[in-house]
This record gives sequence, C-alpha cells and structure tokens, in this order.
Amino acid sequence: MPTLDKPDALADYSVVTTVDVQWGDQDAFGHVNNVVYFRWFESNRMEYASRCGLADAPREAELAPILARISCNYRLQVRHPDFLYIGGRMTRIGTSSMTVQHAIYSQQQQKLVADGESVMVLFDYQTQQSCPVPTALRRAVEVLEGCSFDVP
Amino acid sequence: MPTLDKPDALADYSVVTTVDVQWGDQDAFGHVNNVVYFRWFESNRMEYASRCGLADAPREAELAPILARISCNYRLQVRHPDFLYIGGRMTRIGTSSMTVQHAIYSQQQQKLVADGESVMVLFDYQTQQSCPVPTALRRAVEVLEGCSFDVP
Amino acid sequence: MPTLDKPDALADYSVVTTVDVQWGDQDAFGHVNNVVYFRWFESNRMEYASRCGLADAPREAELAPILARISCNYRLQVRHPDFLYIGGRMTRIGTSSMTVQHAIYSQQQQKLVADGESVMVLFDYQTQQSCPVPTALRRAVEVLEGCSFDVP
Amino acid sequence: MPTLDKPDALADYSVVTTVDVQWGDQDAFGHVNNVVYFRWFESNRMEYASRCGLADAPREAELAPILARISCNYRLQVRHPDFLYIGGRMTRIGTSSMTVQHAIYSQQQQKLVADGESVMVLFDYQTQQSCPVPTALRRAVEVLEGCSFDVP
Repeated sequence: MPTLDKPDALADYSVVTTVDVQWGDQDAFGHVNNVVYFRWFESNRMEYASRCGLADAPREAELAPILARISCNYRLQVRHPDFLYIGGRMTRIGTSSMTVQHAIYSQQQQKLVADGESVMVLFDYQTQQSCPVPTALRRAVEVLEGCSFDVP
Repeated sequence: MPTLDKPDALADYSVVTTVDVQWGDQDAFGHVNNVVYFRWFESNRMEYASRCGLADAPREAELAPILARISCNYRLQVRHPDFLYIGGRMTRIGTSSMTVQHAIYSQQQQKLVADGESVMVLFDYQTQQSCPVPTALRRAVEVLEGCSFDVP
Repeated sequence: MPTLDKPDALADYSVVTTVDVQWGDQDAFGHVNNVVYFRWFESNRMEYASRCGLADAPREAELAPILARISCNYRLQVRHPDFLYIGGRMTRIGTSSMTVQHAIYSQQQQKLVADGESVMVLFDYQTQQSCPVPTALRRAVEVLEGCSFDVP
Repeated sequence: MPTLDKPDALADYSVVTTVDVQWGDQDAFGHVNNVVYFRWFESNRMEYASRCGLADAPREAELAPILARISCNYRLQVRHPDFLYIGGRMTRIGTSSMTVQHAIYSQQQQKLVADGESVMVLFDYQTQQSCPVPTALRRAVEVLEGCSFDVP
C-alpha cells in the first residue's frame, strides 16, 4: 500500500509503501525469511514504476523493466507482528539501466531493519533486448525525485 | 492487519483482517496464484488465535493449533492492485478440533472473491498428539463469536 | 520432476511427480508450511495437463484450466530434508469441470503424508467464461487413466 | 537435492544442488520471479552448511549462521519447465563472517543464468550477537574447498 505518512528515517525516499508482516513470512528460525524482503522491495518498485509512468507507458511498446541485479543488507531481524515502511528512491539513470535504493523501517522496533538496491534494465520483451531509457521517463523520474540525473 | 472497519459482506465474521495484493502474488496467468489465498487465510487464523487467547495461553503447555484440513473456493479472479478484507469466524468446536470459516472480499471488485474452511486441531508438540480443546478456550471463542457451541 | 519410478502407495496414480523439500518451505513451527502443499499439487497438475495435452492444445484457443476449488488433508508433518512423490489422477470429468485427486508420499517417513483434491474448470480467458471439456481432451485423459468417464 | 554429477560450468563449485523449476515459480511476466532465486541460494547454503558441519555442531551452542547480506545478478530469464544446478563455494572466511558464492546453471539453456553472493555471520541466538568462526569449522570448510583461508 502506498502511503504519504512516512517515518523520518525514510524522509529522503520519494516512494514509501507499507506492509504488514504476515505470520507465514517467518521461517524455522522464527524470524522473517530472507527471501521475503525481496518481495517487499518488488512491491515498492512496482509502486515506483506506477508513479513515474514506467508501469503503463512502455506496456504498449512491449517494454517493461527487468531486474539485472538486486541486493539486500539485513540489519535487524523482523518478526510477526510488525508493520513496515519500505522506501524507494532512484539514485542513478544510466543509458538503459535505472538504480533504485530501498530501505525498510520497522514500526515495532522504530529502526531501519534492512536496505538494498535494485538495478533494472528497460527490456523489450519482443526483441528480448535491453533498450535506452526514454527521455520522457527520465523526466518523469526527475519530477518524482525533485532532482536531475546526469545523462550518461 | 486486523481492522474494525469491515464491508457489509463480512458483517457476520468476527475477525476481519486486511491485506494489499502484492504484484508478486500474481502468477503467469496474470492473476493471484491459488496458493496465496492460503497465506491470507493463515494470517487471518493467526489474528483469530491472538484474539481468543489461542496463540498465547497454550504456548506454555507446548500446545499449538495445527492444521488438519483446509479448502478454498475460488469465486472470482484477483489482480494487483487490490485491497482485500479477509473474514474469519468459528463455526464448530469439536472435542479436539475447531473449524474456522473464511471469506475474502475485494475492494476493487466490491464482491466476495473466495471462501474456504480451516479445520485446526489442538496439538501437543511434546507428545506429538492432539488434545482436547480446553474449556477456557471454548469460553473465549464463545465470547468472541457471541454464541455458544454445543459440547460434542 | 515427473517420474516413472513410484512408491507402491501411489500405484493407482497415473501421474507422479517428485520434489525435494527445501529448508525454506518450513515455517516458525519447524515443519513445512501449509501453503507449500498447494505449490506441490500445482506442479503435479501442470505435469498432468502436459501429459494429456491440456496444457498445449487449448492455449491456441485462449482456453486454460482455472482452479474452482482445492483442498488438502494434512496427515503427517513434513520436515527438511525429505524427498516427496506427489501423485495425481483424474477422478471425474463433468460438463466443464475436471477433478484431480492428489496424494503425497514421504521417502523419509515411508508414508502418505497428505492428500487433496483440485477441481479445475476449463476457462476461456477471452470471454472470461467457463466452457465445455472438449471430446479430444476427455479421450486423452481416458487413455492416460486407462478407464472411461461417464458423460455427464 | 545435492548431486555429484555437475555441469562443467560449475566445476569449481564444491557443493552443487539441483532443483526443478516449478510452474508456480513464474510471475506475471511469464518467467521465474526474482525472489525465487534466493530460495534456491538458500537451499544450496543449507546443503553447504550440512556438508561442513555448520548446520549441526553449532546448534548445541545455540549458534547458527544468519544472513548479513545477499545479492543476485540475473543473466538470463528462466522458465518452466527447466532443471537447474546451483553451485556454492566458500570464497572468504573473516573473523565472524563467511562468504559463499553461488551460480545457477540451466539444463534447458545449457548456460549460467544467474550468480550471486551470500555473506553469513555466525550468530548466537541466545545473546543475539555475532561470534567468531570456530577453528574446527574453518578447518572443515578448508577440507571441503581443498584450500586454506587466510586468518583475518
């Protein structure tokens, strides 16, 4: 769920989504399993894509973002029940790639519990090749982030 | 997330939880995958268990509910984005089993999209055997449901 | 993975697939989480669909099986590591529905640990409506099962 | 499932596990979802931990490996059906951390489709603190890898 109300720790993140920790997100160690964080990152990216038009516009042209690389740093364990804020902000736009930084804040612990980075590539599913980031998309992200990105 | 605000369609459900459909809940058919509904049912059961003390009290005695049987009827497809209300109500308490009925309501479609039933058994993880539903638990459920259950 | 080598307990199941229990299939109770069994059933159904031509043929016509109802009976807990055989057999073909029965056998425990039932409906994704089971598909299933199904 | 038979591309990986791609591992883009790769890495790590005694020995002392950081590079899309080999090898042992490198090979494509890295920390669940890698564990890993690791 996208949200306008966000914790101070995520003040610099342009798109903040929220999620309830589900009991079943936990594994046999009794804490949230490592793969679940990537589901949360994904939901945040999808909201980001929706906000800057990345989700809609390119669909006509069979373009869609595809993940090239992703990472997560686990800072603190998360348990059910908890309510999390996931922040996302674009930190770099390359020729055909876009880097989104994520951070996760726990309401229960009042702390950042994880952060990470998604590198997406604009992908043409018809030709199965990456393609340059359109200028209109670059502009939309700049409006969302309130800054300009160097053209690589 | 538990909620007090619930749609009319779930008026008869004592415990209503909510969840945002995540993009990644969808499968290659472009709708929410069938297994995800059971994660939503589980989250609802856990909230139910928390409300009637089933989650806490028995833990001391190494007792916990274990699923004996579960089912789901898929009425309408669900897609991202959507916001769902999941209702749960106890419909039967047997000697050692408890049956919870679930229903899922889509805010997007303003309709019930699925329903199902969980049969739980109180399980002693130390002896690995089922055990009778304690009277205190039966009473707590009766208070929550506002009705009495026949003793089997 | 489909397999020809199957345990005696699944002798009556026409399509048997196998799967390794992954560590991450387990939840905070230290056993395989209830939703995972439905992923296993699904993989078995997909292999079944592939064997009887259900997966391929209808795709041209935008037809595909959609789940109407599914259930699982949990008989014994499953833990990592284990290797499972999942059996599937068609038990009923209605006008537009098909019922597949599943059973799961644990190599570790040398026992059936769960069983269940999937009711699928042939669905036309273009018109968003169910449609009758084609005769050719009925015949293919009869060959696979070595029996004939009454026309409803 | 651990395997001795491994593709040449994974010759340098000491622990190779295998997995069938399940239909349900795919998302609405029709390829395997990004989070699933981390489940495969995890299964490989667990087998690695089992081989070098990391999984058993420390359990008595309430020690267990916890993930500090993980990453994945997606090289090629993966689809169902496919059969994958996941390689794991220890590349660094620090004071309290251990780095495992992973690579995934697709039988269908006969190519490496992804690689990544897991940084684990030995964690004492009782004191909730990281602790030094025991010498016996370091030795066991050296035997498994057939090389020695510098003491940091």
